Amino acid sequence: MSERITVVYPGSFDPVTNGHLDIIERSLSIFDRVIVALLINVDKQPLFPVEERVDMLKTVTAQWPRVDVETFDGLLVNYALQRGAKAIVRGIRALSDFEYEFQMALMNRRMQPQIETVFMMPAEKYSYVSSRLVREIYKLGGATPGLIPDVVEQRMKQIKY
Amino acid sequence: MSERITVVYPGSFDPVTNGHLDIIERSLSIFDRVIVALLINVDKQPLFPVEERVDMLKTVTAQWPRVDVETFDGLLVNYALQRGAKAIVRGIRALSDFEYEFQMALMNRRMQPQIETVFMMPAEKYSYVSSRLVREIYKLGGATPGLIPDVVEQRMKQIKY
Amino acid sequence: MSERITVVYPGSFDPVTNGHLDIIERSLSIFDRVIVALLINVDKQPLFPVEERVDMLKTVTAQWPRVDVETFDGLLVNYALQRGAKAIVRGIRALSDFEYEFQMALMNRRMQPQIETVFMMPAEKYSYVSSRLVREIYKLGGATPGLIPDVVEQRMKQIKY
Amino acid sequence: MSERITVVYPGSFDPVTNGHLDIIERSLSIFDRVIVALLINVDKQPLFPVEERVDMLKTVTAQWPRVDVETFDGLLVNYALQRGAKAIVRGIRALSDFEYEFQMALMNRRMQPQIETVFMMPAEKYSYVSSRLVREIYKLGGATPGLIPDVVEQRMKQIKY
Amino acid sequence: MSERITVVYPGSFDPVTNGHLDIIERSLSIFDRVIVALLINVDKQPLFPVEERVDMLKTVTAQWPRVDVETFDGLLVNYALQRGAKAIVRGIRALSDFEYEFQMALMNRRMQPQIETVFMMPAEKYSYVSSRLVREIYKLGGATPGLIPDVVEQRMKQIKY
Amino acid sequence: MSERITVVYPGSFDPVTNGHLDIIERSLSIFDRVIVALLINVDKQPLFPVEERVDMLKTVTAQWPRVDVETFDGLLVNYALQRGAKAIVRGIRALSDFEYEFQMALMNRRMQPQIETVFMMPAEKYSYVSSRLVREIYKLGGATPGLIPDVVEQRMKQIKY
Repeated sequence: MSERITVVYPGSFDPVTNGHLDIIERSLSIFDRVIVALLINVDKQPLFPVEERVDMLKTVTAQWPRVDVETFDGLLVNYALQRGAKAIVRGIRALSDFEYEFQMALMNRRMQPQIETVFMMPAEKYSYVSSRLVREIYKLGGATPGLIPDVVEQRMKQIKY
Repeated sequence: MSERITVVYPGSFDPVTNGHLDIIERSLSIFDRVIVALLINVDKQPLFPVEERVDMLKTVTAQWPRVDVETFDGLLVNYALQRGAKAIVRGIRALSDFEYEFQMALMNRRMQPQIETVFMMPAEKYSYVSSRLVREIYKLGGATPGLIPDVVEQRMKQIKY
Repeated sequence: MSERITVVYPGSFDPVTNGHLDIIERSLSIFDRVIVALLINVDKQPLFPVEERVDMLKTVTAQWPRVDVETFDGLLVNYALQRGAKAIVRGIRALSDFEYEFQMALMNRRMQPQIETVFMMPAEKYSYVSSRLVREIYKLGGATPGLIPDVVEQRMKQIKY
Repeated sequence: MSERITVVYPGSFDPVTNGHLDIIERSLSIFDRVIVALLINVDKQPLFPVEERVDMLKTVTAQWPRVDVETFDGLLVNYALQRGAKAIVRGIRALSDFEYEFQMALMNRRMQPQIETVFMMPAEKYSYVSSRLVREIYKLGGATPGLIPDVVEQRMKQIKY
Repeated sequence: MSERITVVYPGSFDPVTNGHLDIIERSLSIFDRVIVALLINVDKQPLFPVEERVDMLKTVTAQWPRVDVETFDGLLVNYALQRGAKAIVRGIRALSDFEYEFQMALMNRRMQPQIETVFMMPAEKYSYVSSRLVREIYKLGGATPGLIPDVVEQRMKQIKY
Repeated sequence: MSERITVVYPGSFDPVTNGHLDIIERSLSIFDRVIVALLINVDKQPLFPVEERVDMLKTVTAQWPRVDVETFDGLLVNYALQRGAKAIVRGIRALSDFEYEFQMALMNRRMQPQIETVFMMPAEKYSYVSSRLVREIYKLGGATPGLIPDVVEQRMKQIKY
């Protein structure tokens, strides 16, 4: 196999956490190119607008030349196929909704059998971090330094909740 | 990243099932080389001796030039490192012992942080197949054609239980 | 026991999937009569109105004379008792919210101890299908032929999302 | 459907518990005939010999004329088919090995598609009772009156552990 | 250790159930003082206003002099620290969202390492009771006497849903 | 409540790990006295004899005057009652056999309702450590420094496997 392998790492990244960065870095150790793909979901009211999320993602992944940050809407598997990706990477935690991940992965496989889903584990110190939990904590006046990048931490503090 | 990526797919393969082959084939679609690594476990009383299991594995993977069949003892992560592998591939089923897989993967990472563990899903038609269950069924006089390779099916039938 | 056994198979069926039909057919193999009971939930905004869901259910179950399609509101156990049913049938998937099913079944038993809850498994090829997931995929421009009846597939395509 | 429905309720019953009886009684409310099928497993060293387990089962189910107590070896699905059963009944507890039950049920369905597996819940007061746990407690000098039938309780006390 | 140990038992208590009271009583058997802490969540539309929930909690815990009923907003761990508590008590059911509890507990520990989280089990007869399920049942015209205190039962009946 | 609260922390401790010590230390922050109770199980073939396990436990808990190390056989709840304990402490990991813990705790409560079971979480860095896994790794020629106390690490290395 002489070709280079591209994978897609999809998410809402609202905001990006150190857990996300951990998975991206691990993906880079075994795949050639990682497309961080921000899902545009018009239904949900995000904390940060799409542009700001893309901006933060580009800042915190600037250190890795083999990472691209993109946005997509529509079906993830169609997007992955169109971008020439061979697999979707999903971070999976013992504490996450594993059942849902499996259901989605099997459905995605049915729609595009040529796209694999690969599950990777974040470091255990990030095993309980999620964007949702981070948002809840800042809204209640707390903070999670060390669990989100510094640039995200600064923007989280500036928001009026 | 110009290097080629080798992964290890470890197991007892007593016997190899179509679920194992499914994971090997999926691994080949995203990695350059797959080492099927048969664990020599002196404590357990296997159904087939190591040599016969290696022989069956070589027969059923002969169609894939990028697959090697090897044996190992000692720590899996040390073996993977020594063989130049970047990751361990584990098939994971909603119906499998997921908790145990996670525990092993985190411990392996602690012992050799440079080796990743990657989880992949078999086809749903193999979601309930395991070597142990196959052994039990043949012992009780049943058979599982379609869930194990033909060459394995023939040898399973010849054994005196 | 000379009586005939009636069971209730409740749900929102928004839309009915092949997984639902699979459970209905399996129920018919062990029970005399299956009432497919569509829950009228005024709180939720459905994709299809009640009448259309009933219409589709009747079309796809027309082949089975021992199936009735009805609607209900209020407590499921009260409805089941009033219709002379002995049990509630629930399809259960390894990938579904099993905990929630158990909690509901125990609460239902407490309210009407004479109504049993019986869990049955769909075929593994339907193990990842749910009405919610089907709705999401069509909304994103995808399709799931083979996982929903043809008549449903046609109506799903006609909807403006 | 004018036929009468027979189901098989398999197990080791070493010893039979009130949780088992609870499932048998619930099965009788929706099925015509329940065959309590004691698996003869020559590999395992039981607490009670097969004859004594059958004897206890017959004593505690004597009140129900639609229950038969039998023994079987070989594959459960073949036995069920030969006895004219339409389904296998399994008690399922939130605290039990649900994954294993699912795996077995899917494998059984593959071997004999005409035999269904039906899961039923015991009363929550029996949700933590298992034959294994009962054996362990008596071995340590404890007792579990109320969780096993009186006749079993008496024999458990007489055994020299 | 000569100090007295105070713990916080947080929740929405909308409404308080017998499962909650069971955990409070068990906490009193091993801790000196239990603060029942009602979370003021301005985002959610409760069934009962805060004042009425506090009133019901005070009524049903009046029998226990070592229990205090309070309200809080903001981060739970900050509140616990400020009130001199050493631990947060969480009731945990096999049927509850255990994963979520774990994630919260690890995040809380990270924010305030000096506050422990302690999990206790309610009686199995309350293993399927939750405030949400109670609300749903009354809304559908049902009732759950025996699972909620009498005073709560009376108020649940008076509400126009 | 003026009395002092004693709890029992039971286990095989073959060998004691840093995860065990973490739970003991957390227990000391909320309870007055912790009895580390080593179960004498004549059936299992341990790696270290009872005396050596007690010796190691005493060495690694010598820093805490409120900890006692004892051995017991028979039923845990009877032992706890006899020693004047109010509760059993169990460390619980997302990656552990949670179902089994629950089953045991409910059975223990039934046998001695006055003894509570309290679940506490180890630090996430110990979430994948178990005595069994440690034994397996040393047997295969590996080591787990940082996951077991130094004195245990030294003895693990001296054993001929």
